[in-house]
Amino acid sequence: MLMSQLYSPTLRETPSEAEIISHKLMLRAGLMRRSAAGMYAFLPLGLRVIRKVEQIIREEMNAIDGQEVLMPIIQPAELWEESGRWKDYGDEMFRLKDRQGRQFCLGPTHEEIVTALVRSEVRSYRQLPLRLYQIQNKYRDERRPRFGLMRGREFIMKDMYSFDRDHETLDQSYWAAYHAYKRIFERCGLEAHPVEADSGAIGGDVTHEFMVLAESGEDLVLFCEACEYAANAERAEGVRVPVQEGEKTAFEPLETVATPGASTIDQISAFLGVEPKDCIKTLIYLADGKPIAALVRGDHELNEIKLKKFLQCVELELADDETIFKVTKARTGFAGPVGLSIPCYADYAIEHIANAVVGANKDDHHTLNVNLDRDFQVTAFTDLKETQPGDPCPRCSGTLQGARGVEVGQVFKLGTKYSDAMSATFLNEDGKETPLVMGCYGIGVGRTVAAVIEKNYDEDGIIWPLSIAPYQVVVVPVSMKDEAQASAAQSLYEELQAEGIEVVLDDRDERPGVKFKDADLIGFPIRVTIGAKSLEQGQMEIIWRRTKEKQSLPIEAIVPTIKNFLRDGDQI
Amino acid sequence: MLMSQLYSPTLRETPSEAEIISHKLMLRAGLMRRSAAGMYAFLPLGLRVIRKVEQIIREEMNAIDGQEVLMPIIQPAELWEESGRWKDYGDEMFRLKDRQGRQFCLGPTHEEIVTALVRSEVRSYRQLPLRLYQIQNKYRDERRPRFGLMRGREFIMKDMYSFDRDHETLDQSYWAAYHAYKRIFERCGLEAHPVEADSGAIGGDVTHEFMVLAESGEDLVLFCEACEYAANAERAEGVRVPVQEGEKTAFEPLETVATPGASTIDQISAFLGVEPKDCIKTLIYLADGKPIAALVRGDHELNEIKLKKFLQCVELELADDETIFKVTKARTGFAGPVGLSIPCYADYAIEHIANAVVGANKDDHHTLNVNLDRDFQVTAFTDLKETQPGDPCPRCSGTLQGARGVEVGQVFKLGTKYSDAMSATFLNEDGKETPLVMGCYGIGVGRTVAAVIEKNYDEDGIIWPLSIAPYQVVVVPVSMKDEAQASAAQSLYEELQAEGIEVVLDDRDERPGVKFKDADLIGFPIRVTIGAKSLEQGQMEIIWRRTKEKQSLPIEAIVPTIKNFLRDGDQI
Repeated sequence: MLMSQLYSPTLRETPSEAEIISHKLMLRAGLMRRSAAGMYAFLPLGLRVIRKVEQIIREEMNAIDGQEVLMPIIQPAELWEESGRWKDYGDEMFRLKDRQGRQFCLGPTHEEIVTALVRSEVRSYRQLPLRLYQIQNKYRDERRPRFGLMRGREFIMKDMYSFDRDHETLDQSYWAAYHAYKRIFERCGLEAHPVEADSGAIGGDVTHEFMVLAESGEDLVLFCEACEYAANAERAEGVRVPVQEGEKTAFEPLETVATPGASTIDQISAFLGVEPKDCIKTLIYLADGKPIAALVRGDHELNEIKLKKFLQCVELELADDETIFKVTKARTGFAGPVGLSIPCYADYAIEHIANAVVGANKDDHHTLNVNLDRDFQVTAFTDLKETQPGDPCPRCSGTLQGARGVEVGQVFKLGTKYSDAMSATFLNEDGKETPLVMGCYGIGVGRTVAAVIEKNYDEDGIIWPLSIAPYQVVVVPVSMKDEAQASAAQSLYEELQAEGIEVVLDDRDERPGVKFKDADLIGFPIRVTIGAKSLEQGQMEIIWRRTKEKQSLPIEAIVPTIKNFLRDGDQI
Repeated sequence: MLMSQLYSPTLRETPSEAEIISHKLMLRAGLMRRSAAGMYAFLPLGLRVIRKVEQIIREEMNAIDGQEVLMPIIQPAELWEESGRWKDYGDEMFRLKDRQGRQFCLGPTHEEIVTALVRSEVRSYRQLPLRLYQIQNKYRDERRPRFGLMRGREFIMKDMYSFDRDHETLDQSYWAAYHAYKRIFERCGLEAHPVEADSGAIGGDVTHEFMVLAESGEDLVLFCEACEYAANAERAEGVRVPVQEGEKTAFEPLETVATPGASTIDQISAFLGVEPKDCIKTLIYLADGKPIAALVRGDHELNEIKLKKFLQCVELELADDETIFKVTKARTGFAGPVGLSIPCYADYAIEHIANAVVGANKDDHHTLNVNLDRDFQVTAFTDLKETQPGDPCPRCSGTLQGARGVEVGQVFKLGTKYSDAMSATFLNEDGKETPLVMGCYGIGVGRTVAAVIEKNYDEDGIIWPLSIAPYQVVVVPVSMKDEAQASAAQSLYEELQAEGIEVVLDDRDERPGVKFKDADLIGFPIRVTIGAKSLEQGQMEIIWRRTKEKQSLPIEAIVPTIKNFLRDGDQI
C-alpha cells in the first residue's frame, strides 16, 4: 500500500471526546471515527486490525469444531417473549417497529435466535454436540457510552452457542471454549485472566470473564495472591468467619436516642461519635413485590446481585417510602431490625457486631447497643456484602488484592434456561425427549483491540503486536525527491510484497519528521528508513517500534532480517 | 469437514414460504433459514458461499484502489436531514429512537455517513481520487419482502463511494467500477448485463444496473437485438417519430357525447366502439402542489419517473378529486385537454393521433374527433410513456425486446448532490474550495448468490460454479460400515485436504441414496463415490455435478484429475 493513497487521516491533537489512551490513539492514528455516541466507523487501518482479530478468533473457534453462521441482527419480539427477556432487557435494548407495526429489537445477544434456529432441526443426540458461532454487530443502548470501543452501543462481537446432550458434555464445550479463549487472547498479544463472574441477564450459573488488567478498566477484579482464586468484585464470594467464644462480650442495655436529621451511616456515626463498622445498615427491598429487610455492616456495601440470587426472585428493588413507612412506621432512613415483622436477611459480618447502632423504626431516632438474638432475630445469614480488596480469600487463607480490569470475553454455562423456555428438545439415547443443554461464549472484538492498545503504547503512539498489526512494515525514504532513495524504497517495497509481507511505502512528499511521527503513531512493528548518506554506504536502517532500537544493515540484509523476525513471530 | 458434523439440515420437501427456485433450493440445501419476513440466518454452507462472493468482490474493489472500511449501521437522523432524505425515504426506512429519544435509522445506504466521514478530512485535491467501500448489512423495510434473498429487509451489500475532483475523473471512477463489476459477476459464473437505469432515491443522472436475465426477475429489461442498447423498462427512452406529411387527414368535426358511467379507457373504447390507441388519457397531477395535465395514448401507460424528471419537481402525485373538479369542472374520469387552462404535457405519441376521443371536462361526457392544434395546445411534448417490448430502439432502427431481469448491482454518478447538500469540499489545484464529485456503486451479495442459483440448477438441486461452491468436492463412500471403503475414503479426504482442496467427507451412516441426494441438492461440483466393487478393482468414480457425467478412474488418478480440473478453473 502506498501511504499517499492510504486513507488514514492522522491527528496531531487528541480529540476532546477521548478520555482513555486506546480511544485517543485509535482516533489520532486514523483507525476510526465517531459517527454518534458509542458508534464508530472503522477506517482502512482500523478495519485491518479488526479483521485480523476476527481471523484469529475464527481459527480457534473452528479448531474446537465451531461452525460459523450468520444470524439476523433484527430479531422479532415474539422470540424474546418466549424466553421472558423482552421485559428484562429494559432500556438497554434498541427496539423498533416495522411498517406493519410488528415489534423487533436489534440483537444485544442471540440466545433466542439460535435456540429457535436449531430447535426444529436438531432432533437426535447423534447431532450433538453442536457449536455455532458468528462474528457480527451487537447493539446495546448503554446509558453512558464512552471510552471509544470499550463501551459502545454498536459493537462487533463473536458469539458462540453450544448445544449438548447433558451437563457432562456441556462441561467439555465450556472448557474447550475457555481454553480457546486463552489461546485467542495470547495470539492477540494479550494477557487475559479468567475470573469468576456473575451471569447477569444472560443467565446460567457458571461463568468466567476474561479480564485484561488495565487502569482504565471499568471492572474491579479481586484475586488472591496466595492461590488461583480470581473473581469480578460483584461476584467475589464473602467468607463466613465463625464467631469465636468470648468475641462479643459486655452487652450494654438498649437505648433509643434522638438523631434529628441524621439518617445515613456517615451522619449517624458523626452525630453519635461511633465507627461505621459498629452500625448496621437496614435496607428494605421489595422482592417480587414482597418487603424484606437486608442487613449489612455500616462500612460495607450491599451487593444486590447476591441478594437477588439468594432470594431467587425475578424482580428486586429498593422499597418506596410508602412501603418503608408501612413496614417500619418511620420515614426512610430510620429502619432497624428490632421488632421488624418481615423476613430479615443478614450478611455474615453482622454475626460479629456487638452493641450495634441501628435505626429505631421511629422518625429521627436510632437505637444503641443492639445485639443479635437478645434484640433481634435473623431469617438467614448469607453473603450479601460487596467484596473488597483486603477481604479474605474464599478459597485459602490469603487476602484478596484488587485491580481494574477490562472484560474482553465471557463464557457461560446456560444449562437449560433457554431450551426449557423455548421447548428446544432432542431425543436422547433412550428415545426420550430431553432439553438441549446450552452454553454461550462471547468476545468483544473491538474491545479486544482497545485492550491491546491499553497495554501496548508509548508516548509516540501504538505498538502493535505483530499478529494484529495493520501492516507489519513501513518503508520510509527520507526524501522521495531523491531519486536514489525513491528507487531503493520502491525496490524494497516490491521485494517485501513479493515475500508476502504486509508493507506500506511512505511515498508522501512530506518532511521526514512528519513521516516518522505517523509511523510511530500508527505503530507499524518495523520501520525501514532510507537516507541519502546510509544509502551511499549501501545501508538502510531498521527501527523496531517496541524497543526503538535502531539497526543499520547492508541493504541485502534487510529482507532476510525482517523475514527471520516475522518467522519467529516474536511479540516485539 | 465431516458431513456427520456439518450443520446442514437438508429438506426433502420445499417449505411453503418459497416461491422461486433459488429460494426453494437455499432452504432445501440447508444454506439458510428464515427468521422473520425478509430476514434470514445463514447456516455454515450458505455463509461459505456468501464469504466467497464477498472475497471476489473485495479483490476486485482492491484492484481498482478501493479501500475497505466499515461504517455504522445505525445512522443519526441529523445527517439525513442535511441531505434532505429523512423524509424522502418514507416507510422503507427502519427508524428507531435511543433511550434519550434521539432519532436514528438503520442504514438503507450510506451516502450521508460516508460524506460526513470524509468532509472534514479530505482537504486537498492531492488526496483524490478516494474510493471507500464496505461489505455490510443494509436495511429496507420492503412493503412485500419475498423470494428469499431476492427481496429481503436485512441484506448484505457491498457499497463503494468514490470522491473525485471533477466530472472527468468521476468518469474514470465510474467506468473502473463498471468494469470491476463485469469481472466480479463473471468470476461468480454469472452473465450480468449492464443496462441504463433510473437512479431513484439515490440520485444522480447516469446509472447502470447489472441485470441477470431470469424468469423470476422482478424487473423488465428492454434491449435492442440490433445494437448494444439495453435499459430497465422504467428508464428506457421513447423515440420521437416525426409526423409525416399527410399522416393525419380528414379532421372530423368536434362532437361531445354522453358516456354515462364510462370513465376508464377500456370502458370508453367499449362503449364508443373505438380502439384504445385512438383515445387520449388525460391525467391531472400535482407537481410540487401545482396542477398540471399529462397526456398519453389510451393504450400506453404513463411513466411517472419520466414525468417527474421532465418537470424537475420534488413531489409528484395524482391530483385528488377536489383538485380535479376545480381544474376540469367534472368528476374524476372525464378530464380532457380541450379548454384546460393548466400546463399540459404530452407524450410524443400524441402528435400522431387524429380524431381522438378525450374526456369532455363534463361529468359523464366525452368529446370525439379531437385534434391537436385545432382543438387543444400542448405546453411541451416529451417522452412520457412506459416503454414496452416491440417499441423502436432509441439508438438505432431496431426493435426493443423484453426480458425479465434480476438486478444484482448498480453504479451511479452522483455528481455533487450530497457534497453540495452537506458542504463536503476540497481545495482544488487553484486553491479554490470545490465540492467533491461523487459516485456510488452497490452489489447485493445475497441476491448475487440467489441469481447464481436461478441460472445454475437442475431437478436434483444446485449446481455451483467452482468459484463460489461451499466446498469443491464431496467424498461419498457407499457404506461407512465397510472398513475398506471407510479407510479409502478417509485417505482420499486427507490427501485432498493436504492439497488445499475444500472437501467434505460424507461419513454418515446413511443409505447411499440419501447421501447422493444430499450431494446433488447441495451441489458440490465434484463427487467421488467409493463403492465396494470398484474399490476391489482399484477404482473410484468421479461424478461431475453439472453434466452428471461419470468417470471410473484408478484410485491414484483421482487427486490429479481433480487438481487439473480445479487448476483450469472451468465453470463446469
